[in-house]
Amino acid sequence: MALIVMKFGGSSVADAQKITRVAGIITDSWSEGNDVVVVLSAQGDTTDELLEKAAEITPDASKRELDMLLSTGEQISIALMAMALEKMGIPVISLLGWQIGLQTNSVYGKARIKSIKTERIQNELDKRRVVIVAGFQGINKYDDITTLGRGGSDTTAVAIAAKLNADLCKIYTDVEGVYTADPRIVPDAHKLNVITYDEMLELASLGAQVLNNRSVEMAKRYNVNLEVLSSYVRKPGTIVKEAANMEETKISGIAKDSNIARVALVGLKDEPGTAFKVFRQMAKYNIDIDIILQSIGRDNTKDISFTVAKPDVLRTKTALEELHSLLKFESYSIDDSVCKVSIVGAGMINSPGIAATMFEALYDARINIHMISTSEIKVSVLIDQKHGERAMKAIHEKFFS
Amino acid sequence: MALIVMKFGGSSVADAQKITRVAGIITDSWSEGNDVVVVLSAQGDTTDELLEKAAEITPDASKRELDMLLSTGEQISIALMAMALEKMGIPVISLLGWQIGLQTNSVYGKARIKSIKTERIQNELDKRRVVIVAGFQGINKYDDITTLGRGGSDTTAVAIAAKLNADLCKIYTDVEGVYTADPRIVPDAHKLNVITYDEMLELASLGAQVLNNRSVEMAKRYNVNLEVLSSYVRKPGTIVKEAANMEETKISGIAKDSNIARVALVGLKDEPGTAFKVFRQMAKYNIDIDIILQSIGRDNTKDISFTVAKPDVLRTKTALEELHSLLKFESYSIDDSVCKVSIVGAGMINSPGIAATMFEALYDARINIHMISTSEIKVSVLIDQKHGERAMKAIHEKFFS
Repeated sequence: MALIVMKFGGSSVADAQKITRVAGIITDSWSEGNDVVVVLSAQGDTTDELLEKAAEITPDASKRELDMLLSTGEQISIALMAMALEKMGIPVISLLGWQIGLQTNSVYGKARIKSIKTERIQNELDKRRVVIVAGFQGINKYDDITTLGRGGSDTTAVAIAAKLNADLCKIYTDVEGVYTADPRIVPDAHKLNVITYDEMLELASLGAQVLNNRSVEMAKRYNVNLEVLSSYVRKPGTIVKEAANMEETKISGIAKDSNIARVALVGLKDEPGTAFKVFRQMAKYNIDIDIILQSIGRDNTKDISFTVAKPDVLRTKTALEELHSLLKFESYSIDDSVCKVSIVGAGMINSPGIAATMFEALYDARINIHMISTSEIKVSVLIDQKHGERAMKAIHEKFFS
Repeated sequence: MALIVMKFGGSSVADAQKITRVAGIITDSWSEGNDVVVVLSAQGDTTDELLEKAAEITPDASKRELDMLLSTGEQISIALMAMALEKMGIPVISLLGWQIGLQTNSVYGKARIKSIKTERIQNELDKRRVVIVAGFQGINKYDDITTLGRGGSDTTAVAIAAKLNADLCKIYTDVEGVYTADPRIVPDAHKLNVITYDEMLELASLGAQVLNNRSVEMAKRYNVNLEVLSSYVRKPGTIVKEAANMEETKISGIAKDSNIARVALVGLKDEPGTAFKVFRQMAKYNIDIDIILQSIGRDNTKDISFTVAKPDVLRTKTALEELHSLLKFESYSIDDSVCKVSIVGAGMINSPGIAATMFEALYDARINIHMISTSEIKVSVLIDQKHGERAMKAIHEKFFS
């Protein structure tokens, strides 16, 4: 008997049939004697349909009224799920963000959770009811509805699990867990039984879209055990938790991110403050920078390369044009035919051989490396996009075969 | 400059175009300097669509979860209307039942309003914002969402108008006001400029579906001036208010109700308690009784006739079968080919000539009267349904030509 928080996404509750199937999963856990809190997203296309209704009226709706509109999506989901459980004879109650006192800051559209009152949820659990909570929503200090933005339902689930000291927070998705690499690219990829929060964070930010970073960060902060598993196949998924033994070096996965472009500034003056001025300019245009590489150029100049997300390429151009007139440099180029391939594993920094093994795999495959970046638990390389999938397979084979 | 509460029904906000048109009506009133509170129903078919979603899951959803589901309909309406007003540059805010502290009892599906906190609405009005309120919904003492049942949005509007001491509560509908008779049946029917609460109540209960009785009763109790008017044609409607001069006899309207059946019990024992036993049985089956007529039968027996609503006919049969074995009587019959035609007017009881004039009109038209019922402000007759429309025309001509 344990306290379990379960979260199901929009595709898992898209229609009556899917809701009934999910209700079966919930019922099984409850029938084993567990206390169960369920967090749901809006059904399938509901959010898009609501956005369309708004767009028919105005392209510039305030975020406050958009949140008022969009929060109905989760409300519909939880009411329908409660009905499905009622039909199965399970005691159940659905609750909205304001009903569980989920307080957020006042940033409509991407609010952050400040606190949750657990009294209501706890009272309902004490009556042995399954509690169905609307994800993605809360209220601010004005008693106005806010939404949590992308991955908001995951975050709701983790926050509730943290606050209730749940034994496990199960995030149901359309994949069976976290894989060593994307199985669509690397057929040999296998599912991991366990992964650390930090590894999960690196994988998520590297383009393995299984769990939203915000929710993993929160799980790490409050030490919430997560499980990522499939809502379609009933078998164990991947547990995300604190590292049991950080000494042991282990590669957990390989990820590829193609949503990236490389920017190169050539012939900058080699004097103090140059890098500062470049990245202050990027910050002014709100452009997130990933890998940075600085090298000595010809004739007492230096070159700076960095990567940006593809959607920021146009703004980067504007920023660099402006920079060019302020800060003399020879030229700049933006190349979006690149991708980033990374290996992730706890304790990697203490095992230099791991990076070497990765580079060896790429060398064997005759794939050129443009940039390299490392952190405590990952090694990333920038290569031509056309070699991306081949690189993943080569690295995977080297480490996992 | 006044405080105006406006209520628009589901068909007035059915799509983006209609919402924008209604936003124009609101804007005009606000621009004249009025403080404006708007109460909305769910868009067009939204409620039916939501009920269908529930029906796909279970035919027996709890009323608590149905209210959780259905209350999203009004939430969508108010968010969209707020967006339409934002687009016109009008300061606006949408508010849900719980946000205005609309407390109800705990009868899910047909809750009754207990109180409204006006602080939030008043604060927003003080900022010169148009306040858009979700009709039909409130919360009970458990902080759970309740819906007010049929005509709930009208009731919400009147309750807010009462609480805020509004100068006028305008109920926008798809008719131009209250008519002396249904214009589809009686082409000569004309719109009334003023009608009393009591006359309106009688007309509503007699099948003139303009305003819900609950809202008129509440308006009468709190002396809220109502106006029933069209959301399509911009002209004055019918004002509903306290009678200025109850001495003056005036027929305000003629109504027909075909949703009725006549029940006749023949050959009951003529002894004390017979009527009590009959109607206790009806009450046990939750059957509402309208007109009752008792007459002397043959051989020391009596006959009792009464009318019930057509949807109750099946239950009435069951009730009577059971009654037959308890309380010996000769036979019973149920005739649903009847209708009730009524004239309504304040002070009618003091003008016996009015009933006579009505009966004369029916006699002239050779229409037989089965039952008669009178109250302070109305006279109703039960006649064959096939004569209903002809009866209305004949009576209307007699009184209004």
